[in-house]
Amino acid sequence: MSVLSRYNLTIGNLPPGKNNSIYDIAGVRLGHVTLSDGPVQTGVSVIHTGPEHPFEHKCVAASHVFNGFGKSTGLVQLDELGQLETPIVLTNTLNVGTASQALVRHMLDLSPAIGETTGTVNPVVMECNDGAYLNDIRGMHVSESDVLTALAQRDESCEEGAIGAGTGMSCYELKGGLGSASRQIELSGQTYHVGCLALCNMGLLGDLLVDGRKVGQDILALRAQEAESQSELGSIILVLATDAPLSSRQLKRLCVRSGAGLARTGTQFGSGSGDIALAFSVANRIPHTPHASGLNNMQQIHEDRLDPFFRATIEASEEAILSCLFASQTTKGKHKRIRKSLADYWPLLS
Amino acid sequence: MSVLSRYNLTIGNLPPGKNNSIYDIAGVRLGHVTLSDGPVQTGVSVIHTGPEHPFEHKCVAASHVFNGFGKSTGLVQLDELGQLETPIVLTNTLNVGTASQALVRHMLDLSPAIGETTGTVNPVVMECNDGAYLNDIRGMHVSESDVLTALAQRDESCEEGAIGAGTGMSCYELKGGLGSASRQIELSGQTYHVGCLALCNMGLLGDLLVDGRKVGQDILALRAQEAESQSELGSIILVLATDAPLSSRQLKRLCVRSGAGLARTGTQFGSGSGDIALAFSVANRIPHTPHASGLNNMQQIHEDRLDPFFRATIEASEEAILSCLFASQTTKGKHKRIRKSLADYWPLLS
Amino acid sequence: MSVLSRYNLTIGNLPPGKNNSIYDIAGVRLGHVTLSDGPVQTGVSVIHTGPEHPFEHKCVAASHVFNGFGKSTGLVQLDELGQLETPIVLTNTLNVGTASQALVRHMLDLSPAIGETTGTVNPVVMECNDGAYLNDIRGMHVSESDVLTALAQRDESCEEGAIGAGTGMSCYELKGGLGSASRQIELSGQTYHVGCLALCNMGLLGDLLVDGRKVGQDILALRAQEAESQSELGSIILVLATDAPLSSRQLKRLCVRSGAGLARTGTQFGSGSGDIALAFSVANRIPHTPHASGLNNMQQIHEDRLDPFFRATIEASEEAILSCLFASQTTKGKHKRIRKSLADYWPLLS
Amino acid sequence: MSVLSRYNLTIGNLPPGKNNSIYDIAGVRLGHVTLSDGPVQTGVSVIHTGPEHPFEHKCVAASHVFNGFGKSTGLVQLDELGQLETPIVLTNTLNVGTASQALVRHMLDLSPAIGETTGTVNPVVMECNDGAYLNDIRGMHVSESDVLTALAQRDESCEEGAIGAGTGMSCYELKGGLGSASRQIELSGQTYHVGCLALCNMGLLGDLLVDGRKVGQDILALRAQEAESQSELGSIILVLATDAPLSSRQLKRLCVRSGAGLARTGTQFGSGSGDIALAFSVANRIPHTPHASGLNNMQQIHEDRLDPFFRATIEASEEAILSCLFASQTTKGKHKRIRKSLADYWPLLS
Repeated sequence: MSVLSRYNLTIGNLPPGKNNSIYDIAGVRLGHVTLSDGPVQTGVSVIHTGPEHPFEHKCVAASHVFNGFGKSTGLVQLDELGQLETPIVLTNTLNVGTASQALVRHMLDLSPAIGETTGTVNPVVMECNDGAYLNDIRGMHVSESDVLTALAQRDESCEEGAIGAGTGMSCYELKGGLGSASRQIELSGQTYHVGCLALCNMGLLGDLLVDGRKVGQDILALRAQEAESQSELGSIILVLATDAPLSSRQLKRLCVRSGAGLARTGTQFGSGSGDIALAFSVANRIPHTPHASGLNNMQQIHEDRLDPFFRATIEASEEAILSCLFASQTTKGKHKRIRKSLADYWPLLS
Repeated sequence: MSVLSRYNLTIGNLPPGKNNSIYDIAGVRLGHVTLSDGPVQTGVSVIHTGPEHPFEHKCVAASHVFNGFGKSTGLVQLDELGQLETPIVLTNTLNVGTASQALVRHMLDLSPAIGETTGTVNPVVMECNDGAYLNDIRGMHVSESDVLTALAQRDESCEEGAIGAGTGMSCYELKGGLGSASRQIELSGQTYHVGCLALCNMGLLGDLLVDGRKVGQDILALRAQEAESQSELGSIILVLATDAPLSSRQLKRLCVRSGAGLARTGTQFGSGSGDIALAFSVANRIPHTPHASGLNNMQQIHEDRLDPFFRATIEASEEAILSCLFASQTTKGKHKRIRKSLADYWPLLS
Repeated sequence: MSVLSRYNLTIGNLPPGKNNSIYDIAGVRLGHVTLSDGPVQTGVSVIHTGPEHPFEHKCVAASHVFNGFGKSTGLVQLDELGQLETPIVLTNTLNVGTASQALVRHMLDLSPAIGETTGTVNPVVMECNDGAYLNDIRGMHVSESDVLTALAQRDESCEEGAIGAGTGMSCYELKGGLGSASRQIELSGQTYHVGCLALCNMGLLGDLLVDGRKVGQDILALRAQEAESQSELGSIILVLATDAPLSSRQLKRLCVRSGAGLARTGTQFGSGSGDIALAFSVANRIPHTPHASGLNNMQQIHEDRLDPFFRATIEASEEAILSCLFASQTTKGKHKRIRKSLADYWPLLS
Repeated sequence: MSVLSRYNLTIGNLPPGKNNSIYDIAGVRLGHVTLSDGPVQTGVSVIHTGPEHPFEHKCVAASHVFNGFGKSTGLVQLDELGQLETPIVLTNTLNVGTASQALVRHMLDLSPAIGETTGTVNPVVMECNDGAYLNDIRGMHVSESDVLTALAQRDESCEEGAIGAGTGMSCYELKGGLGSASRQIELSGQTYHVGCLALCNMGLLGDLLVDGRKVGQDILALRAQEAESQSELGSIILVLATDAPLSSRQLKRLCVRSGAGLARTGTQFGSGSGDIALAFSVANRIPHTPHASGLNNMQQIHEDRLDPFFRATIEASEEAILSCLFASQTTKGKHKRIRKSLADYWPLLS
């Protein structure tokens, strides 16, 4: 069941996929390690792009940076080649190096050729700063072993909320974390999906919009208080997956649209918020070793048929963020700070 | 009086400037030529960046392309040098060449040195496609003389609606055109402004949001009809002006934020919609001829103080679009097509 | 016969195509109008991308800006959609508007649907500043009729030198203009070509390198004089064409490489020089009207097989520029200024 | 003494700085850890941007990617904010994560506020693939402790060749590594410098040009053999430093020019070569904590005075690469492979 449907909320007008999550893209699976212990509120999440060997059968991919106050790694090569060749690892800002190192080790184990008879591998690690409120981020608590454990998981269902990389995140000064949603598109008798997994850690409470409603203002009124903060130190990572055959240029156009879904939740895209989108397609896998012809045969949706995919992206992105907010349970962290869940406030809002 | 205040609508929480328009940036003025005669529904609008000679005292500037299905010209050089050295001309898509030619002539008249003892001049012309519904755009009705006339005007007040370049535009399948708004920021005892002038020609009716309310759906219900179109063939140009000392890199960050204001009015950033923002500052004018030292002294807002400018940009952009919708009067054009004003529907919406 | 072979010069090690010019890409043809009369030294050149209707059967394309002090138009949309839908027009800087207007008219004549039942058209016009030395550019002497005449031509052979848009150009303070070259690549039994057409108007004499030799310094010594200028006010346009199936992202990678060929001729990429590359492929034409499936089937060279195409691009670009210098005859222009041909100096160099 | 002067080579015509290296930019210093033991041929090099606290007094900076087959990290934020806030660490491709983690720890030690009362820190780590020939890169031999040791060093003189990150690099199938050079510019009575530090690991032997001479072909003839490789799996990092007051936009223009110096050494910018430039200025330091006014006062060289800085960049970049080739001594590595030094071949070339 979709999280939002429990609250009688429907975002947009396209139908969701069966799972209403990134799991509607065949083969996409998540793995998490959650570190939740007093001031340690952090973790790792991994997005597996399919059952295929990620290095031997690369995904077409692209990224877009809305606001570059972020430390994600791997985007330079991903955009040059239009390819993703590892699982995507999500974690906290100061453990990107750890995650990168672990992901490299994981890939070296998978591919004895890397660094020996073929070139190197491009690890993709994305992050948000959970240290802005809940997590003792200076402790750099995520270990290589945690990352390897997460890489070894492929969960049966798409968990949302304060788990994995989402454990210590805050969103609109409420409890943030992971959220997901999907949309389904019919085109010439084919069914395609666009799914979004959002790692949500941005926003000021007073700005929060839920399907257009100024819920952040309502909660402030309820609390009878002013907004706590003046500046965003958060970030958001929007990972888009699709089974539609799109080129890297077209996937970049999808990334841009995810910003519209994000904007509709109210954020001001603060200077200190690293807001980044990455999109990949599981269609048109690219072999690491070229065919004898030196050619790849690629299908591509015609540009004039992209609008439903844009709409799907916007709706799935907006819903993924809201779904995160409702799914993320109230959490206590460093300095005994507490982030309350939107779910706790919701019944109190008239 | 602000257009929106007549409808009891307030966008965001920053105060508007005195005019609540781009006219709050000292020296910024508009000139228009309107061509409205049966199937001819088009025109020209000019943004003067100040009383200064635009080529001798250049503005710091930047642009950002949300969706590049657009024919605006001059952005390559503007982004390379971070400078704007002409007035900005707005017109219909197929008359960009005419406008460019006229703007060059205008600049040659202003500067005998251009093309002789100094380099060339970079004309900035931006456009939307008014031929998608109301205007006989194939007629290419804007003449060089029309553009020169508009360049010679500096209106006392900031007119909005179906005038100048806005004459034949459609927005959310309602009457579009020009809209403007501004916001005021206090920083360390200084007052700064961000203003937006929007040339609005994008969107599908069913998507229209007015301050979060699904007004487009309400109007469709009122009309008891389905959405007319499936794809956007429109465009929007968002011109941002500020009196704050911002670098071209920072102005580009403002451009990016204007997309959040745009997104909140509901658009899906359709593949065929050329959505482009341009920002300039009237602080820190750059002399065409270098000082003897070869140096410019530039002030610059500290990066950590930019958030209010981002918020101002988002609010002014959203309001400029809504203001356009309310200000643009019902218009009849080619093939006897009619675009109704949002103002006509508003009283009918419960 | 190749121009350079007459001078016993061979650039690089890949074989040229049959014509050693952009004409080796099947269907690519040029048309020129030359205006050469006293101080009027300018013109128009048109690159037809094939016999196909350019709007109905679009080319895959991309561009790259090395230095954006340039007024080329149409690149925003070309890069967003990865498509080229008009012939490319080359002319002087201050007549880009004229050329754009004429190209729009030409396309409206070809396609009654444009601006009526389909969207608009994206005219691509590129330019260099011939007014920096020889041409009375302020006179804006190119007319719409000149452009339409050039659009109607498809020359049997690829002319180089001081013709068309190249009439008044200067290059390394010698006579510049148009030059072309090509390279041939064998891949898995297929023969592919990369051709370059260069409109050359950049560089200071003292910097000129001919296949690594400091020919500019030699000519300065011969003249017993100092370099005339301190700053580049020129520009160069590098148009790359190929019959290899490359995506727009890959074509952009080709554009980037053309800068290496350019660099090897010695230029310093001066601040005032608009240095821009555009690449298109005649393989994988994209229909304006989507197929019923909404899908395009695209072939694409595997990324690991691109190196020969990069090498071909670099060699063809370097040779096109040198070929231009040798082919462009000594020309007299405004203020009785004379630009001498490299061909005149060559026999005098030991 | 400059390395090249020992070989009677002079690149370009601008004078070098006193050290003819990146050390001519006041305060810039290097630290290295070299790991050279049989198949382990790798290391770390650190560029300190000055004596200032790098986080509290940030440098203005920018980057440019020529070819993005690279895993450098930190460029997203560096380009968004136009700021560099850590030393730059150079190492091998598969140890970027290790280096990133160590650099974060180093910065946390320097700044107790990071991740607690202020935001996070953006570690900048750049890399080349020394595993393509000499180093057992799969062993990931660089440890956090090595990186911390290098961070603690500030060498008195600018060492070049096979040290630090350069230990295992190959360049034009000869021994590569680190090289540096500088140029001096007089402007209105002020003396400015541009320095380049190049980590060189790209190129095929047959392509090598030394000041225009086809030295790579000469060496192949000497060896009586064909080129060994068909594709580049290398990379090059060009770090530019200057004491001139340049904005991040202007520094990006410098980065672009360094590619011309690179091109003149002959490389084909192979698909598998990560070619990236980063530039920083030690003028106009930006305080982490804003002044009370919220404003920074920045000087900036006028755009029309940049050409000498472009020329300086090109010359210093070309010379840094050549200097690396001459300075890097013949080295033996994994699988008993040997990379010979250009210095060994030079006396044999007629």
